[in-house]
Amino acid sequence: MSKLKFSPLFWPVKFKKDYLLVLDETKLPKKTAYIKVKNYQQAASAIKAMKTRAVGQVLLVLYTFIITYRRYKGKKTLDYKIKQAAEAFNLARPTLSFSYLTDMVLAWQAAGFSLEEKILGFLELLKEKRISQAQQVSRLIDSKDTILTHCNLSGLIPLVGSFCHNQGKRVSFFVTETRPYLQGVRLTAWELSKGGFETTVICDNMVAQVMKEGKIKKIVVGADNLAKNGDIANKVGTYQIALLAKQFKIPFYVVCPPSSKAKGGEDIKIEIRPDKELFKIGTQTIAPSGIKGYYPAFDITPNNLISKHIYMGV
Amino acid sequence: MSKLKFSPLFWPVKFKKDYLLVLDETKLPKKTAYIKVKNYQQAASAIKAMKTRAVGQVLLVLYTFIITYRRYKGKKTLDYKIKQAAEAFNLARPTLSFSYLTDMVLAWQAAGFSLEEKILGFLELLKEKRISQAQQVSRLIDSKDTILTHCNLSGLIPLVGSFCHNQGKRVSFFVTETRPYLQGVRLTAWELSKGGFETTVICDNMVAQVMKEGKIKKIVVGADNLAKNGDIANKVGTYQIALLAKQFKIPFYVVCPPSSKAKGGEDIKIEIRPDKELFKIGTQTIAPSGIKGYYPAFDITPNNLISKHIYMGV
Repeated sequence: MSKLKFSPLFWPVKFKKDYLLVLDETKLPKKTAYIKVKNYQQAASAIKAMKTRAVGQVLLVLYTFIITYRRYKGKKTLDYKIKQAAEAFNLARPTLSFSYLTDMVLAWQAAGFSLEEKILGFLELLKEKRISQAQQVSRLIDSKDTILTHCNLSGLIPLVGSFCHNQGKRVSFFVTETRPYLQGVRLTAWELSKGGFETTVICDNMVAQVMKEGKIKKIVVGADNLAKNGDIANKVGTYQIALLAKQFKIPFYVVCPPSSKAKGGEDIKIEIRPDKELFKIGTQTIAPSGIKGYYPAFDITPNNLISKHIYMGV
Repeated sequence: MSKLKFSPLFWPVKFKKDYLLVLDETKLPKKTAYIKVKNYQQAASAIKAMKTRAVGQVLLVLYTFIITYRRYKGKKTLDYKIKQAAEAFNLARPTLSFSYLTDMVLAWQAAGFSLEEKILGFLELLKEKRISQAQQVSRLIDSKDTILTHCNLSGLIPLVGSFCHNQGKRVSFFVTETRPYLQGVRLTAWELSKGGFETTVICDNMVAQVMKEGKIKKIVVGADNLAKNGDIANKVGTYQIALLAKQFKIPFYVVCPPSSKAKGGEDIKIEIRPDKELFKIGTQTIAPSGIKGYYPAFDITPNNLISKHIYMGV
């Protein structure tokens, strides 16, 4: 078995003694730059500004708890500071549920565990589980399949490709550019091409056309929030890809995080972001002045459109 | 009845004595600039470079025939030059059928008519028919409807709004940004807001979400090519909007050009444009270097997904 190819996005936060280095995704692919985060306020604002997403946010939240723990360990204010950090994270982005993380940390803290040890143990497990998810996905892929993906799964897609190659299967990828943040073209296409995988980018409005042309054999997406009934919230655009996949009878696979407290998709609040974010691409303004936009950052894909969930099992 | 609001895109080519001024859509909405066209070679390359589209291309083709006619009238080379011009237009863009125009002009020429008179008469009729199409669409709209549109219909959408207002109906618009050329945000949102209409821009991947939220009551798109069986070719993205409209039971109306020679959608060749056009937004490059893309510029929407065709009747 050849070595697995890990994308820089698979583990995009580096833990230093009393600060963190967070890979700034908004600068990719032009610049591989890291921002310094020293406390939970800076961590929460990096999350709000989407400097990192998905697994990067989990790492950022948990490593920040360790930093906070180290800083206040033995002091009276430790409990209070941990609670403050949890609150800041819970409020950062409405659709994302960090409460499964913050509740876990608060419970460990209340029980008197060493947060550092507990969190590092949890992250080790997380890494194993994610590698295992990529391997599970790879077993669903046939040789010569072309996989369509949307947005970015934090290094998991190149890992799927890597497992496929090790199983002797040829696989190639189609990636939606994923407006407005262009995570598909900036992150997924970038990490796939770094990994040497055949990758084709399309605009978000070309999905039905490439499906009709028979170019797509499987779809693999992630999820930002998994409800207890199997509904998911993911980057806006996922839902319409799932609807189209059903029409074209293409399997639609979802790599899931641990489930949140939501019973169903209707319990997940969709974050509406500022419309000005639709109209700026880098330094360029694409809209006439005074134009209004609407930017739901996520959408809900109901369970019945999902061919298979790849659960994390933590 | 208050005055109808005509967008600059409704008639984007100005006919001067021996040259044309063509509104350069690629510069909108930042700059309202016109390019000078003096002969059919320049006209064909303006079409290839998408400086103008749709009705602008029809005007450009026909006005260029008049210029050619004026220049060579009474000379032996007139027939030859008219044929050369027709050929250049027929080859300019594969999905667009200019042959219904060029055949018409060649027939007039063969019959010894004055091309100038015939073409100007035809364009007068075209203008009337288009105004009538906008009026027909307006009759399908109920008060308080929100209309979703895609790409740009050369001034027809503000005209629909104008007719609705004259009929005492409140109407508002959702516009897909329409990647990669952004005709939705750059042209349609621009002309609608100039006309004073309430307009909201979304990305192409937000269509299913806004439909699910109940925000869209009707869909109105144009067509670049109408086949004899009612299938249409239009800007890529139209097909998936039609598929989603069917799922959400939203009426899907198509404003049509005269029908082409294609019997069905399968006879219409889809133009594949250079992938580098996906990766440049203005001066900005959005993709990592070496990335491949796929850019079908149009797609086919079959007749059975269209609630009503608004025919031109010429």
